[in-house]
Amino acid sequence: MDLHELMMKRRSVRTFEERSVPDGVLDELLDAAVSAPSGGNVQPISIVTVESVEGRRKLGAIVGSQPWVRNAPLSMIFCLDFLRVGRWAKMFDVEFGGEKALLWFLIGYADLMCAAQNVVILAEERGLGSVYVGTILSQIPRARKYFDIPEGVLPMMVLSIGYPKAVPKTIPKLPRDAMVHREKYRTQTDEEIRRAFEDKYGTIDEDVVKYFERAYREAVEADGQQDGGWVEDAKARMDRLGIKSNAEFLFRLRYPSELMIELNEDLVRDFREAGFDLSSLTKS
Amino acid sequence: MDLHELMMKRRSVRTFEERSVPDGVLDELLDAAVSAPSGGNVQPISIVTVESVEGRRKLGAIVGSQPWVRNAPLSMIFCLDFLRVGRWAKMFDVEFGGEKALLWFLIGYADLMCAAQNVVILAEERGLGSVYVGTILSQIPRARKYFDIPEGVLPMMVLSIGYPKAVPKTIPKLPRDAMVHREKYRTQTDEEIRRAFEDKYGTIDEDVVKYFERAYREAVEADGQQDGGWVEDAKARMDRLGIKSNAEFLFRLRYPSELMIELNEDLVRDFREAGFDLSSLTKS
Repeated sequence: MDLHELMMKRRSVRTFEERSVPDGVLDELLDAAVSAPSGGNVQPISIVTVESVEGRRKLGAIVGSQPWVRNAPLSMIFCLDFLRVGRWAKMFDVEFGGEKALLWFLIGYADLMCAAQNVVILAEERGLGSVYVGTILSQIPRARKYFDIPEGVLPMMVLSIGYPKAVPKTIPKLPRDAMVHREKYRTQTDEEIRRAFEDKYGTIDEDVVKYFERAYREAVEADGQQDGGWVEDAKARMDRLGIKSNAEFLFRLRYPSELMIELNEDLVRDFREAGFDLSSLTKS
Repeated sequence: MDLHELMMKRRSVRTFEERSVPDGVLDELLDAAVSAPSGGNVQPISIVTVESVEGRRKLGAIVGSQPWVRNAPLSMIFCLDFLRVGRWAKMFDVEFGGEKALLWFLIGYADLMCAAQNVVILAEERGLGSVYVGTILSQIPRARKYFDIPEGVLPMMVLSIGYPKAVPKTIPKLPRDAMVHREKYRTQTDEEIRRAFEDKYGTIDEDVVKYFERAYREAVEADGQQDGGWVEDAKARMDRLGIKSNAEFLFRLRYPSELMIELNEDLVRDFREAGFDLSSLTKS
């Protein structure tokens, strides 16, 4: 398949066949990660591969209600790794200092995502499917403990990979012109913004299950893999909260703003315990 | 070319032919960015494309001594964009709150890099070359001013793209086993770490120009495009500082730890002025 078409059609896969990823393919995926662009080519990242039954079970439990992590034959935990480069520097009596520099944090996280996205694209091209699972960010202490991840190393993203049981349909995206600005940023009118999101999500005022199927297909598909209940629960909560718009659905029910903000404190604490003290990095 | 091979060989390109990127190819690259994975599919990013002579000149001046930004026929400025989604939410009387939630910042930055890396890979496959330029992070106010980037939108990464004048050689990377851990993180011995970096950079105790050519080819190539002087200057500074190791070269001369740490204050101020108050996000 043409690479442009592959990228356009690519969707997160959440149901996998049980067969494992052949070693040769796994090595190719890891090569792709290691060869990814890196700021200053310093490569301050590490990848923990998880294929064992016990590791999959444990990682699945850590990230919570996302059964595809346990069901995928392979997961990769992408970690920011300032330990390796810091110890190397120390051997030569020089300080890396990444854990004290916000810029290194930002560069390292960019590196980490370049590596992960390389794996996503190559996996897709090799007939595999994958899904990002970012919720490891809210379970850093448990992840660090089980996977022996030491101070100076921060697990930030999980990518679960395997042969798809079914090829999922594409999900709606914003129109290109809503995201792209030619030469200068052009602040859009309310009407333009409203229309762009309506293009993407459609209107909410019809059959709610059809609405989920169109706008949140991934959540509905996920629902089918668990004990179910998400669709029913979401319908009930929409009624209870009187939700009448996509924006309300997203930021009152699916990603409630208050909850997202409340998580700051836990995140900062978990980062600090892992040796990444954001509160000192960002003192103004 | 096979995609694995393409990813292994891919290198940042810093010399471009003058011919512009055809509109059809540009649209494909932007499609690839828009279709990239996005946490919760919220897509809180924007891309400013720069092709005009004036825009290239200005962006080149903003990022500093990196002539390839001005010389590339196309650059994309990848921005975290909480403004669009925030205004949309507000139209429906609900708060997005991304600017108050560290988790949204981390999710959005991951989205931004997925989009950028999709462009990198597709560009490569289409015979183009590209180079990431992260130094826009230290010039946020100037970038925001010239490109009319409003509050709530944060320019974080530039990608310069064009047809390569020459195909650059690959640069050294860490051995795969130094970055990959099977099932659990395995803390390496000093000897293992030392050897991994020596594999990558080679030893420093030989002809210093040959050393640069091997370990920092990109800096040497860059040097050739400017008025020159980097190699001479680096040699002189190495002598003056008594630099005898790769680690010292990296963290005393190329990315001096003290300087990287000093930049925290500017970064936090510039982020705050752009509406991203990291110091309040990361209060512990």
